[in-house]
Amino acid sequence: MSAHALSTLAGSVGTVETQFVDLPGPVALDCGRELFPVRVAYETYGTLAPARDNVILVCHALSGDAHAAGYARTPPASGTRDGFRAEERDAADSRGLGWWDGMIGPGKAFDTDRFFVVSTNLLGGCSGTTGPSSIDPSTDREYGSDFPVITVADMVRVQRALLSELGITRLAAVAGGSLGGMQALEWAVLHGDDVESIVVIASTPALRPQGVAWNAIARNAITTDPDWQGGHYYDTKRSPHGGMGVARMLGHMTYLSAGSLDDKFGRRLQSSDDIRYVLDEPEFEIESYLWHQAKKFVERFDANTYLYMSRALSYFDLARQHGGGQLVDAVRGVTARTLLIAFSSDWLYPPEDSEELYAALGEAGKDVELHVIDAPYGHDCFLLEEARQTPIIRQFLMG
Amino acid sequence: MSAHALSTLAGSVGTVETQFVDLPGPVALDCGRELFPVRVAYETYGTLAPARDNVILVCHALSGDAHAAGYARTPPASGTRDGFRAEERDAADSRGLGWWDGMIGPGKAFDTDRFFVVSTNLLGGCSGTTGPSSIDPSTDREYGSDFPVITVADMVRVQRALLSELGITRLAAVAGGSLGGMQALEWAVLHGDDVESIVVIASTPALRPQGVAWNAIARNAITTDPDWQGGHYYDTKRSPHGGMGVARMLGHMTYLSAGSLDDKFGRRLQSSDDIRYVLDEPEFEIESYLWHQAKKFVERFDANTYLYMSRALSYFDLARQHGGGQLVDAVRGVTARTLLIAFSSDWLYPPEDSEELYAALGEAGKDVELHVIDAPYGHDCFLLEEARQTPIIRQFLMG
Repeated sequence: MSAHALSTLAGSVGTVETQFVDLPGPVALDCGRELFPVRVAYETYGTLAPARDNVILVCHALSGDAHAAGYARTPPASGTRDGFRAEERDAADSRGLGWWDGMIGPGKAFDTDRFFVVSTNLLGGCSGTTGPSSIDPSTDREYGSDFPVITVADMVRVQRALLSELGITRLAAVAGGSLGGMQALEWAVLHGDDVESIVVIASTPALRPQGVAWNAIARNAITTDPDWQGGHYYDTKRSPHGGMGVARMLGHMTYLSAGSLDDKFGRRLQSSDDIRYVLDEPEFEIESYLWHQAKKFVERFDANTYLYMSRALSYFDLARQHGGGQLVDAVRGVTARTLLIAFSSDWLYPPEDSEELYAALGEAGKDVELHVIDAPYGHDCFLLEEARQTPIIRQFLMG
Repeated sequence: MSAHALSTLAGSVGTVETQFVDLPGPVALDCGRELFPVRVAYETYGTLAPARDNVILVCHALSGDAHAAGYARTPPASGTRDGFRAEERDAADSRGLGWWDGMIGPGKAFDTDRFFVVSTNLLGGCSGTTGPSSIDPSTDREYGSDFPVITVADMVRVQRALLSELGITRLAAVAGGSLGGMQALEWAVLHGDDVESIVVIASTPALRPQGVAWNAIARNAITTDPDWQGGHYYDTKRSPHGGMGVARMLGHMTYLSAGSLDDKFGRRLQSSDDIRYVLDEPEFEIESYLWHQAKKFVERFDANTYLYMSRALSYFDLARQHGGGQLVDAVRGVTARTLLIAFSSDWLYPPEDSEELYAALGEAGKDVELHVIDAPYGHDCFLLEEARQTPIIRQFLMG
């Protein structure tokens, strides 16, 4: 099941191939609908212990996929890694490096010399797991916007069904950043007995209204693009690339801090000379950067998946779903040890949100620790600040 | 020239009618082109003193117009005031109240018992002054994106030409917030001898890269809307309303603070019950608020004007334009007394920007004062915090 290959690469899990499982039965969703068939794309890194007690489930964020570590056997035409260090990432993309490769591997934060790491593409995804671009058996065409509106809990249900198919019933840890951290929290609340620990990075018990608004605007950019066509664009020659590009640019801005933009781009112009008096072309370096990010993204990601992921993370509300509005009541059933990591410059999932979780878990008498890392890159820190997260996570997973 | 009517309304300038002047000659623009003809829409409040020494020019921001105070003789079908207190503003809109009515009138910050206040629609505007929706005499159709790319300095040149037509050569003050503050700064630098004082509110010597990026994304939302049609949509049946709506929502978010959104909207749902599992309809109150703002805006504002205004305020860079990159060198020629006001929660035009201006003017030995008002509403404070700005401005204008 493990997929090591080029173990000569120090610290790398080597070349990896994505695998697939078809779940044996329908998945009951929060919205009341049942979904069948459901296929799940996943990768594994490291070796499953005979006692099956060394499994870590890694959960991706809005735009991720199952390829979290190592090199893809067939590197994608367009990369799957994005973010602040665009140039470095473009280089990594060309080799098909996983989105959290800095954190998963021999000797890394999630140490594959010790743990068997499982990474899945989320329900609703566009990289192998059933989602809006999958075929609806009742119509024999893509679901499009007829795909059910899913929740973080639904994503967790599908992950659990996959693990059951793999013969895994208990997890040493569930870990993720952003939307991935929401899944870890949902696991601890929904399936406390199955989870020994959770690692929740740059996440929140519920997105604040500013985050809800950014997500709503990004979705609106897609759905008002005439090429979205009500969500049924797959068999046409058009896709809502314009709206998706705007959504991605907007998202990127919320992942970065004002200070890091000052440092990296300042007000430097794209041309070395003076302004060119142009209306609809990039003029400043920051504009070109955003254009580039948007172009890369629309080539690799499905617009409907973006909509469904964005809606799920906006809906996520631990207190409302599980505590009658009280966060402390929502976490009373948690038995997993909890590690919370937040970043000082993250204004989308600010440290205050992790502090709120920390306080609620503490008040409920749970085993929880919180680290707020002073780092400048905003929400993207969870993908970039590998060196500083690693000792914290390794120490926690020893516990 | 003054337009008092209902002076029975305490503190109001009454009902006002917008007036128009056609400039006698072409305007030479920064981009190297000349523009002719140029019409300017303007309003005046108060009475011009015989010595013509009591004139205050008020400058509007990105989405404003000449109607700054009083009641419009013909209230617009859709209002011209926007912002945080949507309900109150909708009520004001129905009476056609000016966008800075709380600041201009008898006994107000800009006291029409003493001053003769002139407000113009900016060059490039869509409310009476020549802009991209005006007829290009060389083609006999609307300029569209053939309109020259203008700068804040170009806006100032047109304001000066209008004042000259009105027989006014010297200003007691130039005042504005945001893009309006940039105009006041540009006046002081370009035409120092003509200006006794400037009032620069929630503004900056140059937008930071984060602000440049938000503006670029908003413009991109418009220009990637197929209905923009390369900027030539006027004689078609289509306008880029989808992209404009996204641009407006995005802009609104940058005008508000995270904390004020928490207080006003929280995570309250639009329906009183539970979530409805909908993909492309507003679900949270904050979403409905943004939809409403977008809808109002696209009905009243021209998309091309939005693009030109946004580009001009992104280009504005006092140090680069006038100081070889050094702000202190840019302001050495300023003779006007300067009042700077900033707001603690304004993250788009943060207090640090006003502090930078304060330091540069101080270093150059200029007469400058800075007030940072501790207020929660973000950049919108310059439209909302009338009560706290008023004594500061009145005191300054006494000086």
